Order: sequence, then C-alpha cells, then structure tokens
Amino acid sequence: MSNLIRFGMSLDERLLKDFDALILRKGYANRSEAIRDLIRDSLVNEKLELGTEEAVGIITLVYSHDTRTYRDLLSDLQHKYFHSIISTIHVHLDRHNCLEVIVAKGKGSEIKKIADRLIGTKGVKHGKLALTTTGKGLV
Amino acid sequence: MSNLIRFGMSLDERLLKDFDALILRKGYANRSEAIRDLIRDSLVNEKLELGTEEAVGIITLVYSHDTRTYRDLLSDLQHKYFHSIISTIHVHLDRHNCLEVIVAKGKGSEIKKIADRLIGTKGVKHGKLALTTTGKGLV
Amino acid sequence: MSNLIRFGMSLDERLLKDFDALILRKGYANRSEAIRDLIRDSLVNEKLELGTEEAVGIITLVYSHDTRTYRDLLSDLQHKYFHSIISTIHVHLDRHNCLEVIVAKGKGSEIKKIADRLIGTKGVKHGKLALTTTGKGLV
Amino acid sequence: MSNLIRFGMSLDERLLKDFDALILRKGYANRSEAIRDLIRDSLVNEKLELGTEEAVGIITLVYSHDTRTYRDLLSDLQHKYFHSIISTIHVHLDRHNCLEVIVAKGKGSEIKKIADRLIGTKGVKHGKLALTTTGKGLV
Repeated sequence: MSNLIRFGMSLDERLLKDFDALILRKGYANRSEAIRDLIRDSLVNEKLELGTEEAVGIITLVYSHDTRTYRDLLSDLQHKYFHSIISTIHVHLDRHNCLEVIVAKGKGSEIKKIADRLIGTKGVKHGKLALTTTGKGLV
Repeated sequence: MSNLIRFGMSLDERLLKDFDALILRKGYANRSEAIRDLIRDSLVNEKLELGTEEAVGIITLVYSHDTRTYRDLLSDLQHKYFHSIISTIHVHLDRHNCLEVIVAKGKGSEIKKIADRLIGTKGVKHGKLALTTTGKGLV
Repeated sequence: MSNLIRFGMSLDERLLKDFDALILRKGYANRSEAIRDLIRDSLVNEKLELGTEEAVGIITLVYSHDTRTYRDLLSDLQHKYFHSIISTIHVHLDRHNCLEVIVAKGKGSEIKKIADRLIGTKGVKHGKLALTTTGKGLV
Repeated sequence: MSNLIRFGMSLDERLLKDFDALILRKGYANRSEAIRDLIRDSLVNEKLELGTEEAVGIITLVYSHDTRTYRDLLSDLQHKYFHSIISTIHVHLDRHNCLEVIVAKGKGSEIKKIADRLIGTKGVKHGKLALTTTGKGLV
C-alpha cells in the first residue's frame, strides 16, 4: 500500500448534485470512492485496448446439455491451453442448458483465440468474452 | 451556468501518478477537467441505458455508390421519420463506397427502429448506431 | 430438438471467400455452424437489449486480498440477493489480487443493481458485468 | 461486382422462425440479405479489432454553445490533422447545446488520438468515438 495524496477539485453545483445521486444509487460509500473507481476504470480500459499486457479473460458459454461434442473438445482445448486456463465454473441453467464460465489469463490476443475456438464449437449456443485486469499495478 | 463547488478527495499516490500520465496522453488541461469528463460520462451512460429519455443517435452507413435502391429508400424514410432526422452528411469514401452519417433525435427505442430500417436496406454494406446525450441537463 | 430446415442462399464470391477464411480462423466446422452462431447472436442481443426477459449476468470483480470489507459485504449481499446469485468462483491472481466471478440469474435490471452494489464496494479495484442468455428458447 | 455463389445451409426450425421474425422487425427484404449483413458485420469487426487497417472514425461531441475555447481548438486541430479529418457536421441541439460530428479516416490508433484530443477539450460535455469500415474490399 502506498501513500494517499489529498487534492482539491471543483465541480459545477448541478453536476455534483447529479453525481451524488448516482453514487447513492450505485451504493458507493462516498465521492472519493466513486471517483477512484472511474479513474481505475479509465486506466484499465486503456491498457485492455492496447492488448499488449497480460489480461484476464472471462469466457461465458451457453450450450446444450445433450451434446457430447462440447465436453470432449473442452478437455482437448484444456490440454492445449492448460497454461492459460485457470479455472472453470459449471452451472446447470435448466434441464437442457448448461453455462460454463472459463477464466483464462494471458495476452489479450491469445485469450481471444481460445475464446473463438470455444465459441465456435458445435453445440455451443452462445458465447461471450469479457476482458478484465489482472489487478497488477492497480492500486 | 451554476456555481462551482470545491471539494477535496484522496487518491493513492501511485494511482494518481498513473492517472496524471493518462491525462497527459489524452490532452486534458488538468485533473478537474479529466474527472469532470469521467463523471459526466457515467451520468450519460446511465441515462442512455434506461432508454427512456431523449437521446441523439448517430447512424453511420457505408454503402455502394452504384446502388440506386438505397437513395430511394432513404428519401422515403426521411419523409416517414422527418421529425426525428435532423441532419445528414455524405462522404465519398472512394470510387465505389459512400458514407452517410445521419443525426436523429428522439427516444432511444425510436432511433433504434430507424437505424434498423436503414441498416437493413439492400445495398448498405455496413451500418452502426451510436447513441449520445442531447446535452440537456448536463452541465 | 426440433427439425432441421434446409434452405439456399446466395453470397457474393469475394464475401464468401473472406467469410470462409474467417470461419477457419475461428475454428468453425463449416459455414452452417458459423452462420447459425451469427443468427443466434443477433437474437440474443436483441433480447438482452430489451432487458425484460430473464438473463444470466457474469459479474467479474478484481479486489485486494488484504481488504476484509469486501468479503463481509459479499456475504451480506449474498443473503439479500441469494435467490439471484447462483454460483461464485474465486481465483488467486497473485499475492495481492483476487478475482471473483459471480453468476447471477434474473431480470437484467436486477442483475445490474447487484453488479453496481458489488462493484461499488470499497476494496474492489475493478468490476465488470457481462450479460448473456439463459439459453431458454434458443435452439 | 463479382459473381454470386449459391449454397445451401440447414437451420433448426424454431431458430429459423425466430430469425424470420427478427428479419421482419429489422425490415430486411429476405433471409439472404439479413445473413449477408451478419457476415459483413463479423468481417468488419475482426478488422476493426486488429486496428491495423484503415478505418473511418465518427467522433461525436456535445458541447456548450457559450464556450469559445472549443471552436478555437478545433480549428487548431483541423490544421494539425487536416489530412485525416474529412468532414464535419454541426447541429444546434438547443439554445445552449451544440453537437458536432466529425468524420475522420486513417489508422484506428491515429483516429483514437484525434478523438481523445477533441473529447478532452474544455467545454466539451460528452464525446464518443465510433469506428467503422472504409468499405474497401467489402462487397
């Protein structure tokens, strides 16, 4: 943990009133906390856009319970990309649908490749990739 | 213009250093200006998500110069939605491709309907809708 | 499983060539499979935009291992929203950073409220919400 | 114009029914037209993500009519980036708010730099960048 720096800033009265209402709706403890989140968000987004630094990818797959193909391929892929895939969560959505959330770590481009392969698999109805920060260097 | 309110906030030293570097890269005059933008951005995004308030839609269409169909339909649509479409800009991208940027104002849902109709038109190669604020109530 | 319908479609030669190359890069088995995914994607996106139907939300939080606050609040929230939160995965990113992936199910608006509360919590460095389909009604 | 290739594909009956309904809502003439748009969209998105090819950027700025600063800077920037900025559209949103839509052409990274400079300018309340294709090589 490094030092906290205190500084002043000015904001239009009306903008501040609207922001205070937003803070309340979002459940922030105070203004500093909310502004810190906006600042961290802008830093994270810039880094993720560059795609050069290590990132965490959350790959979400909805697939039919009935298909065997998917599970077979997943184990193949997990062998191929085992160094990138950290963890997997499996949810039974209903009698027919499964949700699988896969957490991978690596270069953005590599995570995208893994996500493409998984989303493109027969039996996967819908897939999505969300990139986030590894938290490294983010106070 | 309403009053400026001054308040203090605290930020971790390292986070502040990273943010100051980002501010520089993005060309902001100072911290207050950059934080104000983040705050306005979060307010605008919340309103646009709700979709109930008036918004401005920027519809971008890339289409083949050669197709007559598009231009005919556009004038039809402009008659039908004339109260929503404010303005149009036309750019000759190259010998074959035209870009048309259409500015519309209205409820988010209505703007989406107009955008869908335009993007779905034969001859339109690619279309996109970006929603933004009317600036009303935003200081 | 319902019946498969076969139908023909025409595509410009060059567009088809580019698409076939994309299919290969993304690892699809064949054109039908790739087009099916595009179709399902457009159906899912339309439903998620409406926000009225049940959805699955993947909330991703990166937070400092050291903070107690977060874990305490999470258990509070899990009591409050226990009927929406299905499952949680926890990953130790490094010595200081934790990743928590929370899977919630419900109306889009309710999931957003839960995500806001979690992302707004002190100690959470970065948070993200990705909405996806429950798979219901999606073949 | 190159040749049209005809090919067959199979789709689940229920998925096809849902897609036909979507096509109707979006105003497409027929299935081929709708699928072509999905295909082109996936090709464009892949290229834009890479960021290496030439793109068209639509920069949308909402700013206060009263501020002089913005207009002065814009002319400065237009001199600096004149080779990238193709065209500009100006809309009077209401008595206080102006909308400016700027069309720029170039590498994605350069367009982002221009957008950052413009959005970061004092007096600009809200700014947004949407990237699209130049249409080149897209049939």
